[in-house]
Amino acid sequence: MPDRVADDFERMWADLAPVGRAASSGGYHRSPFASAERELAAWFEEQCAARDLRLERDPFGNVAAWWDPPGAVVPAVRAPDRPGPGPERPGLPHPGGAVLTGSHLDSVLDGGAYDGPLGVVSALAALDVLRGRGFVPGRPLGVSVFVEEEGSRFGLACLGSRLAVGATSWDDVRGLRDRDGVALGDVVAGPTSAGAGERSTLLDGVGAFVELHVEQGRGLVDLGEPVGVAGEIWPHGRYRFDFGGEANHAGSTRMEDRHDPMLTYAMTALAANKQARLAGQRATFGRIEVAPNGTNAVASRVTAWLDARASSDDALTDLVAAVERQAADRAGRDGTTVTVTPESVSGSVGFDTTLHLGPAGHERWPVLASQAGHDAGILSAAGIPTAMLFVRNPTGVSHSPAESADTADCLAGVTALADTLERLAR
Amino acid sequence: MPDRVADDFERMWADLAPVGRAASSGGYHRSPFASAERELAAWFEEQCAARDLRLERDPFGNVAAWWDPPGAVVPAVRAPDRPGPGPERPGLPHPGGAVLTGSHLDSVLDGGAYDGPLGVVSALAALDVLRGRGFVPGRPLGVSVFVEEEGSRFGLACLGSRLAVGATSWDDVRGLRDRDGVALGDVVAGPTSAGAGERSTLLDGVGAFVELHVEQGRGLVDLGEPVGVAGEIWPHGRYRFDFGGEANHAGSTRMEDRHDPMLTYAMTALAANKQARLAGQRATFGRIEVAPNGTNAVASRVTAWLDARASSDDALTDLVAAVERQAADRAGRDGTTVTVTPESVSGSVGFDTTLHLGPAGHERWPVLASQAGHDAGILSAAGIPTAMLFVRNPTGVSHSPAESADTADCLAGVTALADTLERLAR
Repeated sequence: MPDRVADDFERMWADLAPVGRAASSGGYHRSPFASAERELAAWFEEQCAARDLRLERDPFGNVAAWWDPPGAVVPAVRAPDRPGPGPERPGLPHPGGAVLTGSHLDSVLDGGAYDGPLGVVSALAALDVLRGRGFVPGRPLGVSVFVEEEGSRFGLACLGSRLAVGATSWDDVRGLRDRDGVALGDVVAGPTSAGAGERSTLLDGVGAFVELHVEQGRGLVDLGEPVGVAGEIWPHGRYRFDFGGEANHAGSTRMEDRHDPMLTYAMTALAANKQARLAGQRATFGRIEVAPNGTNAVASRVTAWLDARASSDDALTDLVAAVERQAADRAGRDGTTVTVTPESVSGSVGFDTTLHLGPAGHERWPVLASQAGHDAGILSAAGIPTAMLFVRNPTGVSHSPAESADTADCLAGVTALADTLERLAR
Repeated sequence: MPDRVADDFERMWADLAPVGRAASSGGYHRSPFASAERELAAWFEEQCAARDLRLERDPFGNVAAWWDPPGAVVPAVRAPDRPGPGPERPGLPHPGGAVLTGSHLDSVLDGGAYDGPLGVVSALAALDVLRGRGFVPGRPLGVSVFVEEEGSRFGLACLGSRLAVGATSWDDVRGLRDRDGVALGDVVAGPTSAGAGERSTLLDGVGAFVELHVEQGRGLVDLGEPVGVAGEIWPHGRYRFDFGGEANHAGSTRMEDRHDPMLTYAMTALAANKQARLAGQRATFGRIEVAPNGTNAVASRVTAWLDARASSDDALTDLVAAVERQAADRAGRDGTTVTVTPESVSGSVGFDTTLHLGPAGHERWPVLASQAGHDAGILSAAGIPTAMLFVRNPTGVSHSPAESADTADCLAGVTALADTLERLAR
């Protein structure tokens, strides 16, 4: 890789480093449609302008920036509609179809620097690499940023890409509210009669999507490889558990007279962990809200969210059913109630590992399963041939300030992405 | 009781009913120094003015309203300093000492209507009863309202009465912050050099204090009695448990690689319940804060507050030590940490049941232990002869919208309080 590209990569990374970073923990707070994430979005548009890319926005806040082939009639070069989804669709790029790469810029609360932004910065750097090689695209080659990938604000992960592919309708989500009661429809225009467009056209005519992402586990560390490709995304879901009991005085109420939903929750959290541990799956209670949440009051209500992932759709169903059953058993003993509401469930997604076939074949990169959801999974499920590249994370830790990647590995990722895009966008 | 007094009681109760009431739950939110509680405080001052009581405020927000004996030189009738605390102090009213009754007007979050206000309204009604009897006090007879009894805003229960008796210094608490980061010193003037007074003089010369309170358990229901007196308050305390772990991705992190403080917390909450249940004591985790509190992130930190109460000081120490030991054991297995910080601990308090001795003797009213802290406990510990009256609560539930009392029982409480005050303030 030319030194200039490496320097540019490091400069871009340094631009982003302070934005939304908490001094206390070193973690990032880049909530979608709020100040830090909007600063990154503005920075992205500046970077695209500096590269003479043509910017395209959709009504939901998603953005793509296009490197058009020379002489193309803009934007009619892309077909007005993507071919329909379906397994019969060829795995290789749609003839004449555009090629898109990118990721997201929002973070979880107190998250790491790499989850999302690494894919966006690497996409811009990969275009720089291709320009340095004298490459000229034979079809539109774009860099995209999808909004609210983490679902940390409005509760629905991959919100932007779901809207972009039409997997979720605006009417279904415009009323979603954040923890402060602000509705999605208050912070994003959405489709309007004033002509912002009825739907997103960002993906029209896109024949292939590639997302680069920091690995969120220790797969590549254990294999001693800097870069890998995704074979699949595990099915996963978010389930809201509402535990209901009876508020009471924490001092004067005898233990045997209580209906304390905190106890039902506590047993459920332990049971979910045990269940997932025994089956080699994942189950996590990381978010909880308690009412009235007072020191000297037995809680009246505990709401907690189960994040569950498993290696097959059936295994996920079984895992959640087992946790729910144990919660209901304990609720019976505690004199409390429990109701379970799935908030979002995503089935298994396979990726097109052939997209990565370079001169040396895809065996250059090991194939890993991802237990994390990604925009790439949404696009793949919508029928767009999609691939993912992972960059080694020495800590294996993600969604945390400890998330990390070495610069050399990041640059290896940029090269791998550039090689892939060069072959796809010829 | 004259009909007029009963009507006035019901009218006062109706005045308070809508203030700070949540339509959704029917519970009360009367946070100290915030709008609903300040509205009650203004209402109290109006009621005192309508009764020609002399209002006295201290620098901390506590208030007393005095019915002075005829011909008294105001306010020098009360001794400038209370006699010192100590067991040698006579149990009967300090000769010439003032007599004070009252309670508080703040509530826990989503609390009941009776905890606090019943004691204030009953105190005003008891003065009305005495006036109706033609009683003329031989010493100052006052009605007091202490601020932040619940500790629901600044975390320290009985904050106002602790400051009034000097058990807590202003410098120790002025920096306490509520959940929004507002400091106590920002909402209360405190002692100032501009002459608000260096300390509270409300209790100077007070020779007896009587607090009426709704019962917070089923003692009187089981006994079939409308009114009882407190024999003692159990020792109790609030302990902050800080569980530390490692934030991580809820999908991609293998269960065995986690350091999840939510699990350590969950086991601790169950252990505290079991420990208290087996020993006939009380232990409650009703308040919890989680970071980052995101659905798809393993928590990095869980902070939870243990409310513990036991029948003796030693039993309380043993209870908390047992919970702490089990938390530390589990933290060792989870690869997490736990530290325990006592935020407030109150030793056992005995009341002077002889204060209630009426014509028919105190055997008229059964003697109960209270597992709840009260301002009366703080005054008693400071050496003021103190008594408490409880009014039957048919649900036995408190710190909840379900907290309740029948009007007939409330009026029986007013009569009992009036009888007690008549004897003490002769």
